[in-house]
Amino acid sequence: MSLYPPTPCSTSLSASSFPVAMPKTLVPLAWDAPKLLLLDQTCLPEQTRWLSYTQSEAVAEAITSMVVRGAPAIGLAAAFAMIFAFNEAAAIHSMALPCLQLLKEKADALKASRPTAVNLMWAVDKQLALAETLQNEPVEAISNALEANALRLLAQDQADNWQMGLYGAALLQANSRLLTHCNAGALATGGYGTALAVVRAAYAQGKCLKVYADETRPRLQGARLTAYELVAEGIPTTLICDNMAASLMQKGEVDAIFVGADRIAANGDTANKIGTYSLAVVAKAHQVPFYVVAPLSTFDVSLPTGESIPIEERHDSEVTEIEGVRLAPKGVSVYNPAFDVTPAALITGMITPVGVLQPDYNSSIAQAFKASAAAV
Amino acid sequence: MSLYPPTPCSTSLSASSFPVAMPKTLVPLAWDAPKLLLLDQTCLPEQTRWLSYTQSEAVAEAITSMVVRGAPAIGLAAAFAMIFAFNEAAAIHSMALPCLQLLKEKADALKASRPTAVNLMWAVDKQLALAETLQNEPVEAISNALEANALRLLAQDQADNWQMGLYGAALLQANSRLLTHCNAGALATGGYGTALAVVRAAYAQGKCLKVYADETRPRLQGARLTAYELVAEGIPTTLICDNMAASLMQKGEVDAIFVGADRIAANGDTANKIGTYSLAVVAKAHQVPFYVVAPLSTFDVSLPTGESIPIEERHDSEVTEIEGVRLAPKGVSVYNPAFDVTPAALITGMITPVGVLQPDYNSSIAQAFKASAAAV
Repeated sequence: MSLYPPTPCSTSLSASSFPVAMPKTLVPLAWDAPKLLLLDQTCLPEQTRWLSYTQSEAVAEAITSMVVRGAPAIGLAAAFAMIFAFNEAAAIHSMALPCLQLLKEKADALKASRPTAVNLMWAVDKQLALAETLQNEPVEAISNALEANALRLLAQDQADNWQMGLYGAALLQANSRLLTHCNAGALATGGYGTALAVVRAAYAQGKCLKVYADETRPRLQGARLTAYELVAEGIPTTLICDNMAASLMQKGEVDAIFVGADRIAANGDTANKIGTYSLAVVAKAHQVPFYVVAPLSTFDVSLPTGESIPIEERHDSEVTEIEGVRLAPKGVSVYNPAFDVTPAALITGMITPVGVLQPDYNSSIAQAFKASAAAV
Repeated sequence: MSLYPPTPCSTSLSASSFPVAMPKTLVPLAWDAPKLLLLDQTCLPEQTRWLSYTQSEAVAEAITSMVVRGAPAIGLAAAFAMIFAFNEAAAIHSMALPCLQLLKEKADALKASRPTAVNLMWAVDKQLALAETLQNEPVEAISNALEANALRLLAQDQADNWQMGLYGAALLQANSRLLTHCNAGALATGGYGTALAVVRAAYAQGKCLKVYADETRPRLQGARLTAYELVAEGIPTTLICDNMAASLMQKGEVDAIFVGADRIAANGDTANKIGTYSLAVVAKAHQVPFYVVAPLSTFDVSLPTGESIPIEERHDSEVTEIEGVRLAPKGVSVYNPAFDVTPAALITGMITPVGVLQPDYNSSIAQAFKASAAAV
């Protein structure tokens, strides 16, 4: 069974109203040639600070330290960083092969900056393949092509966000109470978000009465970023601690859950921010629909199941300290996985730019990729 | 079905080794006549600060502000505060009836200091009933009787803790990996804790390999208090964010869960720290045994189910700020219930000082109260 919309969704936000510009304070990255600008998300919501990048290694560091985060956004940042990487390699090696070899090393460093979100590897590999194809062209031509391709990926992500928003909203009744985890918003993408694109479209269509935002420990992306985005747009938002979501579902206060994703295996198993799995188990117990919203770049069909998705473990201090204030005693051990894997069986549907996929995901994901390849 | 141990559990920690004194830094309250000393739990683990109380209203404020917290501990603090309340009332009214009337008002103020944990109401009512019984006695005799009764309740709580620890540990295999939520430890009781009494006994018997401590947002009692208690005693402890517990269970890393309780209805529905319900749902999905550990003073058999347990909602700032640092944008709404209710169906067993109760709880709880009344 797979729902694969044969016709565009009927919505009041038509594709013709695209693009709606996001306010600058909600845009995670911008290309200001020859610089990449990143909104420093570690300082939000208190401070809006843009940082400027011209080197690939510095962008890798920005990804690791979460200046930029969110699977699609780090993919895009890396796509732009590959322009720097190529220029750096070309400045050292005038010959095509040694230059490509060095570019590959720099690409590997970028890919290693965060291991779980596959959009990063996808975007870096796209750029690497392009450089390889053009290896006999002049340096400037290759650099320009990488720049044009990064800008195209950005535009595509924006269009995909918009489309996913419409598909997701089409699933909802009027005045739905939605819940989301982490930040799968404008700040996590090139445009309107994945899960929050659905929220935005639903709100515009009168289908979103309110949003419950999980604060999302340990990095508090829900409190710091999702609440910031939604409050900025006047969408009624209630912040909760992650452990309160079950209580809301028990009271019948949640009509649907939308989350983003960092990597989706061929069978639909989905790695996303830690806490997503817990939420999905609780949603199942309460029969609350649980949707994953992701562009095709988040799917890693090379993995048959979620078991082999690498899960990043981050530093203890993310759990034991907040803003430099120590919360736990010294001497305590910490387990701090940044992601977990939600089995496909707990996922009601997957909202992608090419339609809403339903179980069996092995089949519907394969079908989506086939259709997408045919459309290119 | 109810398991009601007919004989004492076989353990290496015998009742004869009771009491083991807790280190002073883990004792939440002490009676230093005519003062009540409270360990200020809002400052832990960074600072060990004792505050001195001589007025009932100040104790009520200490309960509200969580200087002292944990259902059994606030009950005990209130029992001592009733000595102050009586002395205050007697200083104003020499006649028995007006004095008792004022005492009742002060008792009500104490009971209103936190609405969910029923141990508070239980202890205050115990003291009130004693004062009423003795109303024709000299003031000093009543005051002394209240003092003796508070000390008796404290000693009883310590003995109950010890017994629950033994009953709980008897349920475990060697080298079990345990998980707990919030702080149901020494700091929450008069002695060794409820859930953490089980941990202590299990560790002493080689049945506890390690403890996972949920940090327990928003007040972080797990990070601040449980980790502090267990690290102080050298029990291997791993701190996790609440939303990571499901991931551990998914990996088969948790053998049993023990939590305390704030109020248990006649059918076994259990109010405890927010997040307990979520944990219980996830435990059920993974077939991890989920135990509630509580003295009889936590049971409110006047309530047929958990539906009518009042759930305290606390200030937004507990969620939006940590240590005065703002984490969320201004303008966001907050939902901050301090407790949730776990339906009896999710609870594997209830460890009480009179045995381990099992479903059907309506029957086993009634049986426990009957046996307890017969034993007095």
